[in-house]
Amino acid sequence: MKALALPLIVTLLVSSVSAETTATGDFGLIVERAKGSVLLIDQSERTVLARIEGLGDLSHASLVYSSDERFAYVFGRDGGLTKVDIVTRSIVGRVVQAGNSIGGAISDDGKLVAVSNYEPGGVRIFDADTLQLVADIPTDSKTIGLVDAPGRRFVFTMWSTGETWIADLSGELEITKISNMGDRPYDALITANGRTYIAGLFGEDGLTALDLWDEVPEPIRVLPNYGRGQEEMPVYKMPHLEGWAHTGSEFVLPAVGHHEVLWIDSNTLQETGRTQTYGQPVFAMARPDGRYVWVNFAHPKNDTIQVIDTVTKEVVHEFKPGPAVLHMEFTSRGNEVWISVRDAGKVMVYDTHSFKKLSEISANSPSGIFFTARAHRTGL
Amino acid sequence: MKALALPLIVTLLVSSVSAETTATGDFGLIVERAKGSVLLIDQSERTVLARIEGLGDLSHASLVYSSDERFAYVFGRDGGLTKVDIVTRSIVGRVVQAGNSIGGAISDDGKLVAVSNYEPGGVRIFDADTLQLVADIPTDSKTIGLVDAPGRRFVFTMWSTGETWIADLSGELEITKISNMGDRPYDALITANGRTYIAGLFGEDGLTALDLWDEVPEPIRVLPNYGRGQEEMPVYKMPHLEGWAHTGSEFVLPAVGHHEVLWIDSNTLQETGRTQTYGQPVFAMARPDGRYVWVNFAHPKNDTIQVIDTVTKEVVHEFKPGPAVLHMEFTSRGNEVWISVRDAGKVMVYDTHSFKKLSEISANSPSGIFFTARAHRTGL
Repeated sequence: MKALALPLIVTLLVSSVSAETTATGDFGLIVERAKGSVLLIDQSERTVLARIEGLGDLSHASLVYSSDERFAYVFGRDGGLTKVDIVTRSIVGRVVQAGNSIGGAISDDGKLVAVSNYEPGGVRIFDADTLQLVADIPTDSKTIGLVDAPGRRFVFTMWSTGETWIADLSGELEITKISNMGDRPYDALITANGRTYIAGLFGEDGLTALDLWDEVPEPIRVLPNYGRGQEEMPVYKMPHLEGWAHTGSEFVLPAVGHHEVLWIDSNTLQETGRTQTYGQPVFAMARPDGRYVWVNFAHPKNDTIQVIDTVTKEVVHEFKPGPAVLHMEFTSRGNEVWISVRDAGKVMVYDTHSFKKLSEISANSPSGIFFTARAHRTGL
Repeated sequence: MKALALPLIVTLLVSSVSAETTATGDFGLIVERAKGSVLLIDQSERTVLARIEGLGDLSHASLVYSSDERFAYVFGRDGGLTKVDIVTRSIVGRVVQAGNSIGGAISDDGKLVAVSNYEPGGVRIFDADTLQLVADIPTDSKTIGLVDAPGRRFVFTMWSTGETWIADLSGELEITKISNMGDRPYDALITANGRTYIAGLFGEDGLTALDLWDEVPEPIRVLPNYGRGQEEMPVYKMPHLEGWAHTGSEFVLPAVGHHEVLWIDSNTLQETGRTQTYGQPVFAMARPDGRYVWVNFAHPKNDTIQVIDTVTKEVVHEFKPGPAVLHMEFTSRGNEVWISVRDAGKVMVYDTHSFKKLSEISANSPSGIFFTARAHRTGL
């Protein structure tokens, strides 16, 4: 393993807050992007338990959970990796580990936390207990699409060189490099079983998949006549790939720059249909049972949600939660969905079967919502 | 809703034990079948935290978890429904709700616990908080194959009449009855997305599936030339249907009375292959990523496990954990498997990638192992 390459700013805070005896399986965190804080919520009770502040720049933040559902590792845009204890409701560790970072992942055994960095480019891997650096993998490129894969592996991709690297930490660090993923990959996802890794391309049409079950994965072209096209298109219109839905036998992909979602057979990776939508889709997320896909849209149509039946591929419901719908999170068994409505300063809770609004929760510019059940899933 | 039909023996115990504030996301319970007790374990630490006693006859016990992963509802063979608080490590409620029962389920919103009864036949549904009876559904038949389905529904089947009932509790109780499931269904399962319900038949060959996404589900025959056959076969050789593996695009079914497992396409429900095994399979369980299926066997070959690659359908590993391998439970992200070896008085923990034994945990006649991550899954 490589030694620490750059000086790190490490702050370890000892918590002095105690809380009632409780279990955390139905808790969640809501990112308050403007304030650098997170709200701890109880999903079953639909209540806010605490606000935890001091997490730095959360303008494009995401987080993962420890396998005991006690700790959240929050990845800030400013390179900050903050460890939050949701039992004591406090920050218990913080490392400013790079200048500009974008996302992270946790290994399947819960022991390693990896962060993807733009500046300097590369991936840094930390001990989940102590936040001490375990491995530093510089890449000479912005690093995108970092995910965890089974077997203590992390997979990530280079914006500049179009290479995907698989870092295996089951023993001594081993890196497998795969070339020719395409021109300027900008984001990637891994399927819930950890088998298929798919990168979206900014510099050319199409996407590129890898079958991680192959001894030596080879790039597989997907939708080669679809994507960015020849027009210059602002990056902010590219859909988040983590917003793809997987409904059992199909993926649902928010189309880039068009008012539609695309359906792809998950075995053959061939297109199986398109559904016209109200606006440019941002997230297309499947209810956990895969029966319906919920879609939100880019500005100026970002006040609306459409719900699509995955059998008929038709829109069956449309409603307006409010201004700037940024994110949706389903309960693990799909009975409720929580929706961030940034400019309303609220998170709305809906019954996913009746579409009835169940509750509203005040939050300061809410963006990402993350329930602790994510601790038990791959690639989130 | 029907009123209470039979007198119940209700015992509510108030806990006086306090415990440290903790998170329970990596906890689990191991059934000690001979002693009427359960062991509370910490999966990450591979340690026993407590033994909780007084749960009655656990000779064919199973359990489900509340959505906050704090409470376990344990279904005993003697009709006992016991609510265990794994934070305070004590029994907080117990109802002897029938004379002979077999399994249960919890609704997707976590509010209702249902129990399947042989004597008297039927299903009883309880408030998950108080264990008060909410609905009593007598059936005039032993009731088998009780599972939860999305939308506050429970699905179960009649041994005598071959009917499957869908009880919808999203509003006032509504029951949909489906006839002609086959001759003497003896067990059933539901797929992880809650879409397909499959019942095994004792009285004739084949199995019967229902697509619960259909308005009015119709029985679909599966493997009509396979199953019990014309020979009389003791019931104890019938594999548990909850032991089916679903590997993404295929089911793996332990063959009845043969030394093989069967592969079935999950879309077409047609057979796609067979793999010869060491003995009569009991459980065929997929590692959560679906790459490998682990199989244990009936007496006298119940000291052995075989691991099958789901791509090649070939056995790639075989080993002998010890006498009377009864159950396997994978960690939620698949890096470890815990295996009950009843007559060794131990639960063995293995790395699922290297097959290395990581630990042994002493337990009294261990059978079922249940990690709290099950709280977030449908149909377990």
